[in-house]
Amino acid sequence: MKLNADLGESYGHWQFDADADIMPYIDMANIACGGHAGDPIVMHKTIILAANHGVLIGAHPSYPDLQGFGRRSMRVPPEELILIIQAQVATLDGLAKCQGQVLNHVKPHGALYNDMMADSSVRKAVFSAIAGFYIDLPLVVQAGSQNQALRIEAQEFGITLLFEAFCDRLYLDSGLLMPRSDPKAVLSAVESVEQARRLIQCNEVITPSGAVLCIQADTICVHGDTPEAMQTAEKIRVLLQDQ
Amino acid sequence: MKLNADLGESYGHWQFDADADIMPYIDMANIACGGHAGDPIVMHKTIILAANHGVLIGAHPSYPDLQGFGRRSMRVPPEELILIIQAQVATLDGLAKCQGQVLNHVKPHGALYNDMMADSSVRKAVFSAIAGFYIDLPLVVQAGSQNQALRIEAQEFGITLLFEAFCDRLYLDSGLLMPRSDPKAVLSAVESVEQARRLIQCNEVITPSGAVLCIQADTICVHGDTPEAMQTAEKIRVLLQDQ
Amino acid sequence: MKLNADLGESYGHWQFDADADIMPYIDMANIACGGHAGDPIVMHKTIILAANHGVLIGAHPSYPDLQGFGRRSMRVPPEELILIIQAQVATLDGLAKCQGQVLNHVKPHGALYNDMMADSSVRKAVFSAIAGFYIDLPLVVQAGSQNQALRIEAQEFGITLLFEAFCDRLYLDSGLLMPRSDPKAVLSAVESVEQARRLIQCNEVITPSGAVLCIQADTICVHGDTPEAMQTAEKIRVLLQDQ
Amino acid sequence: MKLNADLGESYGHWQFDADADIMPYIDMANIACGGHAGDPIVMHKTIILAANHGVLIGAHPSYPDLQGFGRRSMRVPPEELILIIQAQVATLDGLAKCQGQVLNHVKPHGALYNDMMADSSVRKAVFSAIAGFYIDLPLVVQAGSQNQALRIEAQEFGITLLFEAFCDRLYLDSGLLMPRSDPKAVLSAVESVEQARRLIQCNEVITPSGAVLCIQADTICVHGDTPEAMQTAEKIRVLLQDQ
Repeated sequence: MKLNADLGESYGHWQFDADADIMPYIDMANIACGGHAGDPIVMHKTIILAANHGVLIGAHPSYPDLQGFGRRSMRVPPEELILIIQAQVATLDGLAKCQGQVLNHVKPHGALYNDMMADSSVRKAVFSAIAGFYIDLPLVVQAGSQNQALRIEAQEFGITLLFEAFCDRLYLDSGLLMPRSDPKAVLSAVESVEQARRLIQCNEVITPSGAVLCIQADTICVHGDTPEAMQTAEKIRVLLQDQ
Repeated sequence: MKLNADLGESYGHWQFDADADIMPYIDMANIACGGHAGDPIVMHKTIILAANHGVLIGAHPSYPDLQGFGRRSMRVPPEELILIIQAQVATLDGLAKCQGQVLNHVKPHGALYNDMMADSSVRKAVFSAIAGFYIDLPLVVQAGSQNQALRIEAQEFGITLLFEAFCDRLYLDSGLLMPRSDPKAVLSAVESVEQARRLIQCNEVITPSGAVLCIQADTICVHGDTPEAMQTAEKIRVLLQDQ
Repeated sequence: MKLNADLGESYGHWQFDADADIMPYIDMANIACGGHAGDPIVMHKTIILAANHGVLIGAHPSYPDLQGFGRRSMRVPPEELILIIQAQVATLDGLAKCQGQVLNHVKPHGALYNDMMADSSVRKAVFSAIAGFYIDLPLVVQAGSQNQALRIEAQEFGITLLFEAFCDRLYLDSGLLMPRSDPKAVLSAVESVEQARRLIQCNEVITPSGAVLCIQADTICVHGDTPEAMQTAEKIRVLLQDQ
Repeated sequence: MKLNADLGESYGHWQFDADADIMPYIDMANIACGGHAGDPIVMHKTIILAANHGVLIGAHPSYPDLQGFGRRSMRVPPEELILIIQAQVATLDGLAKCQGQVLNHVKPHGALYNDMMADSSVRKAVFSAIAGFYIDLPLVVQAGSQNQALRIEAQEFGITLLFEAFCDRLYLDSGLLMPRSDPKAVLSAVESVEQARRLIQCNEVITPSGAVLCIQADTICVHGDTPEAMQTAEKIRVLLQDQ
């Protein structure tokens, strides 16, 4: 089981400096590529940082919406969405190659990720974008009861999926995440480590109602934007090493 | 001698439709890559169009300034300018590869082109961007008395130059183009064909003062944004075939 | 009955030049204010143009999406949408005042207009934006069977509505417009004049199924982006003068 | 002597939270209005915050360059620059009026401020923008030996100037600020308080060479983006109250 984190989410003068701190604990960096964050300088620095830590580099494309940080759903015609995604992945891919690095995966960001999971027409556009990209890149999607159905869909496009679980977000009985707008959506540090432990050791998550969800995940998403989140990542890294 | 044209300069709803008309007459398409024009959809369509006509595909990076169409000089720190250029080239490169195409060259746009010719620190940044790109791409620069000096500068960066002349712009005795702000800057159709003929057959240009400039060019830039410009391009194509 | 048109929809280098031609035939200009089109220079020129023709100036705010020309629906939190609308109206309002002009009305653009009609939470945000603006500005909404219900909603916000009909768009039995994605959505010139005549003289529209819709409108939207559209506008102007 | 600070410089997801802390110590807030920072939500919040502290609200327009935070000089044609500035001021003005507030002044930001001081054609454009705005707003410019010459220039435009000094920036013998690119450009907290004291009590500044510059200032610019800067502001506030 690999740890992934969303990084390179600065823009111009607005710098988030925690990226360097989380790198030692993760395996995969999902790097913003201009859609919701990430100008060329930020992308470049984050690529170098990941490479220096031996962390796998992934593209983190988004609806084109800097002001909304990619968290606002946009109804984009599929044929346009495919190209918007490919252009963002291409930008990061080229900048990585300029540093002798290659992309390892793609993980959609924010509203695009949510829409991909909830809306089959958006998912089809994302799958097409990945299938039509000039190199084969696994696509990160949310793990849950739909793993097998998604795998079948992906096969039709000839693409590979990586299933992701969240250690710091509350799961609903439906298998969806509680929306961020709900104050209980994000777990505490202690709860996050416990949810990660259960994911790693039992492939399951407990919902607020007490239901047990089976979550077969290839990777867990961690955050590094607060000191507490950093400690959580460190503890989950230890859990994984004990496996 | 090759003919090149700046294409793919639409954006979103704002479509310039002349690209298809000029394609039959040119050898090299310089395609906008998001700096001054060109969203992912426009880039994609223009790549396909060029490929269908067997026209070589080049990147046409710019200062990041959609509103000013890349015609406003910006004082960008060199280390940032390098990455801004590489990111734009990378975007077009990746989208081209998704269509089984490869890039052939890079030609800076507008104010970036002018600054590259006039300001050695900008030129150094452009040369560094090309030198550091992950594939070797010749860089288009303006032909003139400085050809040899530029070639030496380029050798230090290990990059190849393509020298470009303009058939429809008035040259000053200094070898610089008369700025667009001057109403006489752009030549008529008849004058353009004559200037092209002289460039192709004699490697020279006559300035308003009657001075003769020696212009050794690899390529001539033509336009296709008016019916008249299109006819000019067609006539220059005939001139070249008669060579 | 007044004629209105959406104008000032150029941006930077991308210029639509038909605005001057349609001005003589209309009463109200809905001027883009930076959301889907319209930089400061375009706004300024269009304000001057409208003023010179004695045409009433309105703001035409949009979801913030230049690349999508405001035609892509965006799920923006209401409290943010209110401020996004007010900021756009404020920009045009201030530029108008610099020319001694005042705003007359507000008409949402594209996807924002459609969402306002179809989704009560978006409509509430638009109504709040207008209610909270520092001067009273009537809001243009689509005329139809819901006129009375909308008027009641608007009264709660203390705002005034202007009801708008479309002469060149096909109406469905539901009273909604056929989406632009349908090739039959836009009427021919002849059909448009006939639909305008019926709207002006009978307050009704005939749908493809033959149903008769009662449409009480204060204003009809015309276009000026093609020579044919211009002639349609001219003919509708004549119809109105004959009233 | 008034204290002013540049505020509202967040954008979307990227939030600088120090604005609330500095408000108690300042008299004038220069609020970003979309050029280099400041979306409608940020502008609105900062207007409310200033109003709640009884702080005068000013517009802080910039070259249109979010990615470069307005710190990159752009060669914008004067007639366009005038409208770019007016549009930004108009946006903030309208949002302020929606909260029952009015603008008190305008202070250009970053590269636009520097260019205004160094380049008479840029200064003329800024003066024209202020002169042509629909309400009279004093313009903040840098205080120094050129005060009287600037006052005469401003009179021709019929505008009022407010002269500003910097407590935390090193002055060169020329009266210009040492560029930020020099590591010594920004003074320490202790030095800043001392420079402020001398400005307030003696109307003078000492340069690194020991030269004494006479600086007649109406306002001193302070920062609030670090805990140290905040303490500096607090101490300068005390100095002013002791006057």
